[in-house]
Amino acid sequence: RRLLPLFLGLFQGALLLFFALFVTYEKPSAQAEDANLVANKVYSTFPFFQDIQVMLVVGLGLLLTFLPRYGLSALTHNFLLLNFSMQWALVLQGLLHHFHHGQVQLDLHKVLISEFAAVTVLISVGAVLGRISPCQLLIMAICEIPVYLASEWVIINTLGVLDVGGTITIHVFACYFGLGVSKALFRAGQQPLHPKETPTPRSDVMSLVGMLILWVFWPSFVAVLCQPGDAQHRAILNTLLAMSASAITTMVASSLLDRDGKLSPGHLQNGSLAGGVVIGAVADMAMPPVAALTLGSLSALACVLGFRFLTPLLGRKLSLLDQCGIHNLHGLPGILGAAASAVAILAASKDTSGSPFSQLSPTGGNASEVEGGQWGDRMASGQALCQAAGLAVAIGTSLLAGLLTGAGLRLPCLAQPPERLCFDDSLYFKIQDQAENPGPDSTTEEGALALKE
Amino acid sequence: RRLLPLFLGLFQGALLLFFALFVTYEKPSAQAEDANLVANKVYSTFPFFQDIQVMLVVGLGLLLTFLPRYGLSALTHNFLLLNFSMQWALVLQGLLHHFHHGQVQLDLHKVLISEFAAVTVLISVGAVLGRISPCQLLIMAICEIPVYLASEWVIINTLGVLDVGGTITIHVFACYFGLGVSKALFRAGQQPLHPKETPTPRSDVMSLVGMLILWVFWPSFVAVLCQPGDAQHRAILNTLLAMSASAITTMVASSLLDRDGKLSPGHLQNGSLAGGVVIGAVADMAMPPVAALTLGSLSALACVLGFRFLTPLLGRKLSLLDQCGIHNLHGLPGILGAAASAVAILAASKDTSGSPFSQLSPTGGNASEVEGGQWGDRMASGQALCQAAGLAVAIGTSLLAGLLTGAGLRLPCLAQPPERLCFDDSLYFKIQDQAENPGPDSTTEEGALALKE
Amino acid sequence: RRLLPLFLGLFQGALLLFFALFVTYEKPSAQAEDANLVANKVYSTFPFFQDIQVMLVVGLGLLLTFLPRYGLSALTHNFLLLNFSMQWALVLQGLLHHFHHGQVQLDLHKVLISEFAAVTVLISVGAVLGRISPCQLLIMAICEIPVYLASEWVIINTLGVLDVGGTITIHVFACYFGLGVSKALFRAGQQPLHPKETPTPRSDVMSLVGMLILWVFWPSFVAVLCQPGDAQHRAILNTLLAMSASAITTMVASSLLDRDGKLSPGHLQNGSLAGGVVIGAVADMAMPPVAALTLGSLSALACVLGFRFLTPLLGRKLSLLDQCGIHNLHGLPGILGAAASAVAILAASKDTSGSPFSQLSPTGGNASEVEGGQWGDRMASGQALCQAAGLAVAIGTSLLAGLLTGAGLRLPCLAQPPERLCFDDSLYFKIQDQAENPGPDSTTEEGALALKE
Repeated sequence: RRLLPLFLGLFQGALLLFFALFVTYEKPSAQAEDANLVANKVYSTFPFFQDIQVMLVVGLGLLLTFLPRYGLSALTHNFLLLNFSMQWALVLQGLLHHFHHGQVQLDLHKVLISEFAAVTVLISVGAVLGRISPCQLLIMAICEIPVYLASEWVIINTLGVLDVGGTITIHVFACYFGLGVSKALFRAGQQPLHPKETPTPRSDVMSLVGMLILWVFWPSFVAVLCQPGDAQHRAILNTLLAMSASAITTMVASSLLDRDGKLSPGHLQNGSLAGGVVIGAVADMAMPPVAALTLGSLSALACVLGFRFLTPLLGRKLSLLDQCGIHNLHGLPGILGAAASAVAILAASKDTSGSPFSQLSPTGGNASEVEGGQWGDRMASGQALCQAAGLAVAIGTSLLAGLLTGAGLRLPCLAQPPERLCFDDSLYFKIQDQAENPGPDSTTEEGALALKE
Repeated sequence: RRLLPLFLGLFQGALLLFFALFVTYEKPSAQAEDANLVANKVYSTFPFFQDIQVMLVVGLGLLLTFLPRYGLSALTHNFLLLNFSMQWALVLQGLLHHFHHGQVQLDLHKVLISEFAAVTVLISVGAVLGRISPCQLLIMAICEIPVYLASEWVIINTLGVLDVGGTITIHVFACYFGLGVSKALFRAGQQPLHPKETPTPRSDVMSLVGMLILWVFWPSFVAVLCQPGDAQHRAILNTLLAMSASAITTMVASSLLDRDGKLSPGHLQNGSLAGGVVIGAVADMAMPPVAALTLGSLSALACVLGFRFLTPLLGRKLSLLDQCGIHNLHGLPGILGAAASAVAILAASKDTSGSPFSQLSPTGGNASEVEGGQWGDRMASGQALCQAAGLAVAIGTSLLAGLLTGAGLRLPCLAQPPERLCFDDSLYFKIQDQAENPGPDSTTEEGALALKE
Repeated sequence: RRLLPLFLGLFQGALLLFFALFVTYEKPSAQAEDANLVANKVYSTFPFFQDIQVMLVVGLGLLLTFLPRYGLSALTHNFLLLNFSMQWALVLQGLLHHFHHGQVQLDLHKVLISEFAAVTVLISVGAVLGRISPCQLLIMAICEIPVYLASEWVIINTLGVLDVGGTITIHVFACYFGLGVSKALFRAGQQPLHPKETPTPRSDVMSLVGMLILWVFWPSFVAVLCQPGDAQHRAILNTLLAMSASAITTMVASSLLDRDGKLSPGHLQNGSLAGGVVIGAVADMAMPPVAALTLGSLSALACVLGFRFLTPLLGRKLSLLDQCGIHNLHGLPGILGAAASAVAILAASKDTSGSPFSQLSPTGGNASEVEGGQWGDRMASGQALCQAAGLAVAIGTSLLAGLLTGAGLRLPCLAQPPERLCFDDSLYFKIQDQAENPGPDSTTEEGALALKE
């Protein structure tokens, strides 16, 4: 019981030490021009950054409140993990990337990159939501962030994969890491449905609101790292189109799969966001708008079908537990997005109108070399292969690291809650029960549970 | 039961085809200057656009959750309609306005215009919320969007009406379209109060949160299409003042109308937004700030009085059903706003200080001719007449089209739910009921509390 | 019962009169350059302004809904007070600061300043939330705003205190004003726990969402008045770091203080925001990032310890009532922030690298004199003393004014609710109870409906 605060306290102490020794702000620029430049950078990045913060803190938090008696924990653990992972990623990035320059100069961009790293943890946790303790969550974050940073470095810098919205580096990676943890941690697999696991209409509404917040701000997430100008404009539009298509396709698919034509709230909460996952890898590429719509539809279809058929199958065959269905929302659409990026690159190389490749390198690194359509088919197929290789690296690294992490999480000192106490806020929160409405039941039941212990 | 998904699926297919054939992105600009221009356009429009998305998806969705057992449906149908109508408006605008130029070049501004078209559908639906099926909603959208586009074209382009915030073109139009549909569809009119129709404190809180979100972001809705600079600045300020005045006047009026001086949640949820509706037509005109405050107060007063006296009257005399009271929130303030715009134009023509008319043409179309106060009284009264004509066009077109649409919605294949199944999520959603029912306890407990008092 | 609407109505009338006589908009600028300038000012301020509106209207409103049966009132009273206080501050500022120039020219900056004034009222009210009537709330606002404006003028303009985020001028002032009101109004002090005072898990979740919204947008609140460029960039980063640290430290402290290691929702709802309060006074100063982290941690610690030990102590010894614990969230972190600003100034004067003081004067007033490190130790210690004097002025003025206001609020005509009717929406809202308790009825009814089918 004292492990969590002690551990967190130690971590905060170490963070303070690290910041005291190594981190500083940029020297203020002496010239007026530079000051202007900084101001413009703030104005162009900060609104996107705030949108992303709303997504992660409020939107994702609410999305996870579909467990009716686990709302406080879902919101709080998400909030804790975001802050913890972000700080941890700041430290690691400071150590890894910048240490050889001496002092680390903090700026909004570095904080943003660290938030992106933290996103992977928030996604992975979905696989085991409600079943593991806060200590285990933190250990997961500690293990996942460095592996993510390494994998992202290999995928982007070594392989040169184009993935401006993090489809491969974030979503696919986070999904398979989470599934790895789940597999190693819950070997017994599928348990009978827990009575507190079923959403109520009210918790479904809260979760739906979370989905809508994520849906609204997703274009900011995809476009924030794009080159300003055409590429960013196109990334915003592609994301809008993909998410709009996936919203509608989700309803079609969910309704068709039900005997009575009724919608499933769970499908809506996930499928509508699949378009945002799939579009990340291709958002700023030179492709026609119809491609974004198609990808959005296909990803929503994959997501809903995954919920209906694949998740039960994986549960039965591999005894794999995936509480939030992250494989359907992040895994399948992520793989689809990676494939789409390879296809888009190949297709663009055949397209001779204009200079299609000037948009292919968002970082501007190779832009000068490839301008004017000098990328031949060979270069394009090379790049397409790189996309595939990046996908393989993301899946392989994350699965392996996830399995190892999950094995480590079995340590008894980490206080994994027993099955019958899962999905309940009262395990982690002081809750005054006298004024609560569902009182009698819950009091009786908790009394019973307490007695059984 | 299969109609909805089939219909939606077909629509998505047609949309894909249309986009594949006709829609493209702008060619990326080769010069650095142009890229800079695009970037600035994105930075200046995108935050407004995101604010509007939050309003429509989250704010309006939550506002409609005042029906306590219809939250999932309200949020989902609003979300579905927004996406569907936006796509449909994109297609129609592509066909109508741009087809003769060949390829349609998609940009953020076109998406924004389509969202504005979709807003009309979202408003109109308020008249029949909870009583019609998703299929009927989609048919409504299909009929309303083209009529809106035509009416807006006539009002703005032919009559030259000044209406930067959509008071006439959006709010008045949407209101009377919705009332027309309601009248034609529910000829029997006022039914006895449905047991699930009454808000609970909890659903009222959700709805109030939705209102607050709409209230906060409304200035972005009004100002997004204004000319950057003074006009936009003034539009923002006028909207802030009007909404602030209407928030307070609503409380005054609601409290005065009740025997015990208590507030009615329904009044607050609507009246506080009336200032945003009324100000749209005059937001960027040269008028003193006191005018914005006055309009805000008057519109809130009209809205609250409408709820108290006009809605019951219309129900009795015309057997008109207006579930959300859209006539009070969009109809009355809209007409007030149109009248105010005519008065403002006449008043400004008398004002000789400065060149008041340079602000009168937000589109910049006639700006050069009228600059320097060359608009005499005659031109001003002509413009004022145009505003009145625009109002008449909006009301006439929408009522007629609404009545026809409503008649069409009576088709039995559209699966209108019978009265006793209205306002219930379980008609459209798979809801697992075993964990719900916080009922018995809470009733007991509330009873106990009540007894103690 | 008629007092509130009459009073509010009179106020609106007076406001209209004031605006009609004295307030106007800036003349539109004739030159294109000026128009561009205005446009840029709108683009750079408006997103921050909207963020702050979301904080105050939605975030703070939701934060106050932790009283389970008082949600409607908490949201509505917060909304009413914000609008009322903002208008009142606009009037007073118009009279005081601008009257000698004749017409008051309204712009977004003036509205923003008035919102900041309104924030003090919203904070102060926390001390007596749920226990006083709307009339009393308005009288509080009427008394607090002018005192705030005077105190702020003395602190900033006369003493030259540096306080870009309002730590001293807003948070400390508002806290002690509220405590003064509470002390004078509730002399009996601590009453036995009211049965409706205890949060439920559901109301705690709503309040937690409010906290998260405030947490996300707080950097905008601190940075909006900073000089664009480096200072603003640094203010954003410092606020992010401080709030991240306080989020984690809150969990550590809350968990350590509980016998079972469980978290208290109340601690989370307040402690996570303490970092935003503390950082306001130093956010744009030249200090290393570690200072922001340390301040965030310390303030969260102070806040949680205050809840655990100080609030009960004050209740027992001084019979002081502090419903929301504003002394823990605004008082203690505010004093800490003021002390930190003095230390930061002294420390910076010893630091000879660069010209540290060029960042010390956000208003740019003395910037030219102090550039180049010409501020010696003496000037620095003078400035540090000023910070302390500012804190003393804020505490002294607010306590005195609060006590006087609280005494005035005891007037019987102001309709303070009796203890047993506190914390209940039904005192201020028409609530239809028949459809509440969806439990047994609806189940029965659904059974009946199902049978009929």
